[in-house]
Amino acid sequence: MSDDSTAEREQGSAFLPRFDGQGLLTAIAVDCVTSEILMVAFMDSEALAKTRETGLAHFHSRSRGRLWLKGETSGHVLRVEEIRVDCDQDALVMLVRPAGPACHTGARSCFYRRLDGDRLQRISD
Amino acid sequence: MSDDSTAEREQGSAFLPRFDGQGLLTAIAVDCVTSEILMVAFMDSEALAKTRETGLAHFHSRSRGRLWLKGETSGHVLRVEEIRVDCDQDALVMLVRPAGPACHTGARSCFYRRLDGDRLQRISD
Repeated sequence: MSDDSTAEREQGSAFLPRFDGQGLLTAIAVDCVTSEILMVAFMDSEALAKTRETGLAHFHSRSRGRLWLKGETSGHVLRVEEIRVDCDQDALVMLVRPAGPACHTGARSCFYRRLDGDRLQRISD
Repeated sequence: MSDDSTAEREQGSAFLPRFDGQGLLTAIAVDCVTSEILMVAFMDSEALAKTRETGLAHFHSRSRGRLWLKGETSGHVLRVEEIRVDCDQDALVMLVRPAGPACHTGARSCFYRRLDGDRLQRISD
């Protein structure tokens, strides 16, 4: 990238999402009330467009190779209140209002364990 | 994956980090005092090992194709206080104590802009 386009991407007001070689960027969902990180997944341009169009978080499932509305089976959708973009525009933080537990295991957040030495320990919910 | 290994990975106490096809997992750095998301990047097994060994966040730079100690030139290292793991163990949240601005632009966090319609707007620091 030229210096000009780097400066525009990093400092400008144009939204120029940068997808990687697989056509993906990283998207982090954060509870807009508690600031807790709920989950992280990937978006392709379709998932990003659907998210912006509907106000509900959509991702691209790498394992299933398809568009995925978060909560499509559980009903635990994530309503997007705000989208933040990082310096080089290859990652997003979404401030969301969750309709239920964000994790498919039933936990409020997917990050329910911490590393303690070589073992994982459950964090009380 | 078998049901058994999925259950162990999701509910067990064994740390079984899952790297993707490129040998990477997602690592999010969060300020352990303010809970602000500072940056997101990728780790390969070497970066994860170095992070655990030194207590300083290391990543794998996809653009440079090499191990990267965050702050190696700026001195703005991230001291890792705690590592959290998500349900399927392909993403980490690190609670960190930053030695300076986390973003190479000088911003405290890389997520210093929000999407407002089709434009980006700077969030006051």
